[in-house]
Amino acid sequence: MVRVGILGATSYTSRELIGVLLRHPLVEIAYLGSRRDENPVISEVFPVLMGLTALRCSPLEPAAVPPETQVILSTLPDGVAMEMIPAFLEAGFRVIDFSGDYRLKSRHEYEKWYGRPHTDEGRLAESVFGIPEIYREQIARARLVANPGCYATGAILGLAPLLRAGTIESEDIVVDAKSGVSGAGRTPTERTHFPECNESVEAYKIGVHDHTPEITQCLGDVAGVQVKVTFVPHLVPMDRGILCTSYARLQEKRSEAELLGLMKDFYSGSPFVRLRKSSERVRTKDVVGSNFCDICVTVAGDRAIVVSCLDNLGKGASWQAVQNLNVMCGLPDTKGLLP
Amino acid sequence: MVRVGILGATSYTSRELIGVLLRHPLVEIAYLGSRRDENPVISEVFPVLMGLTALRCSPLEPAAVPPETQVILSTLPDGVAMEMIPAFLEAGFRVIDFSGDYRLKSRHEYEKWYGRPHTDEGRLAESVFGIPEIYREQIARARLVANPGCYATGAILGLAPLLRAGTIESEDIVVDAKSGVSGAGRTPTERTHFPECNESVEAYKIGVHDHTPEITQCLGDVAGVQVKVTFVPHLVPMDRGILCTSYARLQEKRSEAELLGLMKDFYSGSPFVRLRKSSERVRTKDVVGSNFCDICVTVAGDRAIVVSCLDNLGKGASWQAVQNLNVMCGLPDTKGLLP
Amino acid sequence: MVRVGILGATSYTSRELIGVLLRHPLVEIAYLGSRRDENPVISEVFPVLMGLTALRCSPLEPAAVPPETQVILSTLPDGVAMEMIPAFLEAGFRVIDFSGDYRLKSRHEYEKWYGRPHTDEGRLAESVFGIPEIYREQIARARLVANPGCYATGAILGLAPLLRAGTIESEDIVVDAKSGVSGAGRTPTERTHFPECNESVEAYKIGVHDHTPEITQCLGDVAGVQVKVTFVPHLVPMDRGILCTSYARLQEKRSEAELLGLMKDFYSGSPFVRLRKSSERVRTKDVVGSNFCDICVTVAGDRAIVVSCLDNLGKGASWQAVQNLNVMCGLPDTKGLLP
Amino acid sequence: MVRVGILGATSYTSRELIGVLLRHPLVEIAYLGSRRDENPVISEVFPVLMGLTALRCSPLEPAAVPPETQVILSTLPDGVAMEMIPAFLEAGFRVIDFSGDYRLKSRHEYEKWYGRPHTDEGRLAESVFGIPEIYREQIARARLVANPGCYATGAILGLAPLLRAGTIESEDIVVDAKSGVSGAGRTPTERTHFPECNESVEAYKIGVHDHTPEITQCLGDVAGVQVKVTFVPHLVPMDRGILCTSYARLQEKRSEAELLGLMKDFYSGSPFVRLRKSSERVRTKDVVGSNFCDICVTVAGDRAIVVSCLDNLGKGASWQAVQNLNVMCGLPDTKGLLP
Repeated sequence: MVRVGILGATSYTSRELIGVLLRHPLVEIAYLGSRRDENPVISEVFPVLMGLTALRCSPLEPAAVPPETQVILSTLPDGVAMEMIPAFLEAGFRVIDFSGDYRLKSRHEYEKWYGRPHTDEGRLAESVFGIPEIYREQIARARLVANPGCYATGAILGLAPLLRAGTIESEDIVVDAKSGVSGAGRTPTERTHFPECNESVEAYKIGVHDHTPEITQCLGDVAGVQVKVTFVPHLVPMDRGILCTSYARLQEKRSEAELLGLMKDFYSGSPFVRLRKSSERVRTKDVVGSNFCDICVTVAGDRAIVVSCLDNLGKGASWQAVQNLNVMCGLPDTKGLLP
Repeated sequence: MVRVGILGATSYTSRELIGVLLRHPLVEIAYLGSRRDENPVISEVFPVLMGLTALRCSPLEPAAVPPETQVILSTLPDGVAMEMIPAFLEAGFRVIDFSGDYRLKSRHEYEKWYGRPHTDEGRLAESVFGIPEIYREQIARARLVANPGCYATGAILGLAPLLRAGTIESEDIVVDAKSGVSGAGRTPTERTHFPECNESVEAYKIGVHDHTPEITQCLGDVAGVQVKVTFVPHLVPMDRGILCTSYARLQEKRSEAELLGLMKDFYSGSPFVRLRKSSERVRTKDVVGSNFCDICVTVAGDRAIVVSCLDNLGKGASWQAVQNLNVMCGLPDTKGLLP
Repeated sequence: MVRVGILGATSYTSRELIGVLLRHPLVEIAYLGSRRDENPVISEVFPVLMGLTALRCSPLEPAAVPPETQVILSTLPDGVAMEMIPAFLEAGFRVIDFSGDYRLKSRHEYEKWYGRPHTDEGRLAESVFGIPEIYREQIARARLVANPGCYATGAILGLAPLLRAGTIESEDIVVDAKSGVSGAGRTPTERTHFPECNESVEAYKIGVHDHTPEITQCLGDVAGVQVKVTFVPHLVPMDRGILCTSYARLQEKRSEAELLGLMKDFYSGSPFVRLRKSSERVRTKDVVGSNFCDICVTVAGDRAIVVSCLDNLGKGASWQAVQNLNVMCGLPDTKGLLP
Repeated sequence: MVRVGILGATSYTSRELIGVLLRHPLVEIAYLGSRRDENPVISEVFPVLMGLTALRCSPLEPAAVPPETQVILSTLPDGVAMEMIPAFLEAGFRVIDFSGDYRLKSRHEYEKWYGRPHTDEGRLAESVFGIPEIYREQIARARLVANPGCYATGAILGLAPLLRAGTIESEDIVVDAKSGVSGAGRTPTERTHFPECNESVEAYKIGVHDHTPEITQCLGDVAGVQVKVTFVPHLVPMDRGILCTSYARLQEKRSEAELLGLMKDFYSGSPFVRLRKSSERVRTKDVVGSNFCDICVTVAGDRAIVVSCLDNLGKGASWQAVQNLNVMCGLPDTKGLLP
């Protein structure tokens, strides 16, 4: 039995994480850390958890973590994560971090995209980017796993096989992503006020979203050459789910079957990537509440078009974190995530 | 007072058209033509029209149109339109056609994209593509106006100014569009069954949607060179609205302000295009139920990103048709469409 | 031309009111009063109004109202209304108030349901409850019209004909109402955060909603006897619309046709009430964006069940206010509200 | 390990059932029976099941069921169920039936509400109404369990404790229910076409819904006296979830705390009923994807108002069926349904 703790227990990603871990046969939640003074019972924060758990939040500090806890999953936001996580690492815990703080190798890139100084540069080299389909071995040994961004996971899983094989131009890629509103987090804002975002679609952070550099960093690593991506996220009136439509130029003429073949090779042994034909529907509805990423590829003229979709709280966050946890602990990837 | 008739009176675009024309101070609906045998009172088909009109449907034939009717607006579907419209033209009516049948100049292109033979090739040269912001003079004189596709209007209005000015590469353009479900029409299908499309986003007709050739034809005409577009539409869980995100390579370095300036010049005198700064929200919610198209442009590296949005039943269909009607009849564009 | 001013210009009801009044042929908006210091251009607050009006907000005080303005429509919230409105009345304006402050005749009832002292008790007797279908003559002469609550309008229009005729027991009535989220106003809260209220239905203020006393007051006035109502509102994941399902005991056996007949008599001459058969669909979708209230009545055993629906921003607020304005100014009810 | 089969494998309730049973540690799906000729792989019918199961449909007949299968769960529709189920019972299987065919004890009532003759009257006496909170012992021994209707489960769980205790009048009850659209099944219709039912609420089958008689039958059994209910269901634009608001007259003055106390006693030992205070939010969102039914009770004057909510595919159908399966097989109620 693996004992784990969660930091930032009152976030949406934490709620999802608790739900998944309660069903995991080999993991036990030993600790919920929250900055809320009142140490709430978590099912009072999230009534959906009533009858499932009696867990109560504790102060957000290593000393509050019960003994024999091995792994800490942090859902703290960007900026806060790099303030809190070092103490937990130093106390001997392995950490899976949901924030953007440890995803980029370059402090310069971090500061450019996130607009704040990085306060724990020393650990950027050590952290492992948590996509098990690409970095399984490093994750298995990691002390610090940077769980990827939801958009980034979708874009990367869609494009990695084609870049690895060198079939598409690496500097002429467009990723157009559509996300449900839970991706914006739990704090009410004008943008997420129901009468404002319901029955509407909008683009936001056009060309400047902070998931862009982790996409190019990871895909560059996969491709072995520099990758450039134009990335635009959109808000869509639904709770959960992300669909990425990626457009790339083919290096030379290729059929859909050839590209699908490359993907099958790349994802052989990956139980959570489901490859579809372009004649089939690929839609967020089929992946919500799971760790699956559904992908199809189409050829249109000299372009490859990849559609990849996942649950922003699933393979895009909490379920992928549990997959990383499984890999770190030597369990099968699917343990607790598939029947 | 302009007397008009509507063909295909029981479609969503017809319902919208009736609503707009009932408020139009200088237009009178003289005729509703429908293939339904029972000649229904239109407010029984669309209860939203109860208390607004007592109009009843009539058979779908020129002889059923009352005297002094000048213009026929046809919302008949692709394929049916070119069967029915010739008789109305020959009976002396001017026609605005909502279908795709008269939009393309090339019979070959039509047959390639629509998958059926064209049965009225002779009128392809005569018909005028109905975007008043581009073809005002031709529309004013036209006997047959091909009202553009909803997606096409959004893509064209967003890209035309940049192509006219030669600021973007004309053969390297991606248009990623997101549409509400009313665009799929009134016939229930599995795809539009609420529990299937609610809370989900999906791509469809990837690279093969039949609005593609009218986009490239019209933009090629505007640019004076061949235009190539990769176009992918998506279904989004909302009733109405289309947002097009278009990606193009800049020919040379340009600032956002310069591109916005080009757009302002292009659309000076166009009351229905509203240019926004990229720092502002551009969203379908602000254009639904109107003839507006909201547009913003962003520069990201060597790419221009244009976001354009409109109501698929508004500027994307019925409201634009009324704008075309105004232009054809020598009325101000805005008559009946703005307060 | 009637010149009007609006107080609380940045509310949803104000946005809707501006939209309606801009299309009204005999009304001109002369003044927008807002507590916002910066006096914003209203189309920057509500981009949906861009291209429709150049109106700018002014300070919220009688001295800021331009000359020859006749009627003030206040969309200020409960509590604030009774602080601000007296000064406008004293300055000679006629006022239509959207808040609950002047709806109840009894200060005691106000204080019980609204939980605050009433500071302008003297005007409670003078104010007229603004349902033209019931109080047309008083509204025509009124200096101060209390525009009814959205729920109250739905419940009252559904039940008034049966209570007037004495066909139902007056003290055994249940009103179960379902509302879209815009009814909760423009301020983001946890309850109206998209991921919280989307894909969910909930009851709220069970038995204690402050529209209850105006329902019983008005219906008691119509019935001539005391009326008691159990009222429960529910939040439904849609932007706009209210559907009230009202349950009452029949005093004696009556057929559906008889009850429908009573309703037809009561609403003869009321252009905005549309009576439907129970075999027809009665749904909010058909009334949104209009001043209509659709009603059907069913008999089930010894109970009458009335379904009434309207747009909470339409007949439930801003459109009804314009109907009241028409009545106050001697215009036809339908002016500016129907084609 | 309990081996089970499912009839009507391509329904929404079957899809949900398969999902739950795949995670159940002590149940194995041995058979999927479908009327579809092509015997599809179930994950092609429901792509959400891809990667979870390789099960394929078989013909709908007892001979197609593999040996050692013990229990058949039938999601066949009303009317079809009573045609098919007898053969499975006669072949020795125990059956849980999702349809309305075996819920009512009176053939006369069935024929009145369902509008068709009953063809298997002999088994009406034997079948057990499948609400484990009320009929646990009978279910444990049953050969044929009639899984209750979704609305009925919500209404019954909310009202049973108050009727058992005699605290409310049994013949003056109103149940107003609001349901998501998946309750209407998988066949596309005009009513469930997205642009028709999205952004709208409507009442339907006012006073004549066929879940009414099972509500009164079961509650009458619980109360020991005749129960009369006025029941009106409503369609709400969301995928899943039902909220029932029930209104009843108190026999004598009671406090909320007393009523809540009665409920606690009634549901002590019932792990799937969660009692809430009326000050807390009770909403469908917290029960979707679970077997929970959340209930709160409020006192308003001389009325008790009970809000009860559940997932129409969860406690309202497939999850409750698995709870019944657990009880029939001597397993804990919660096995496979709670972590």
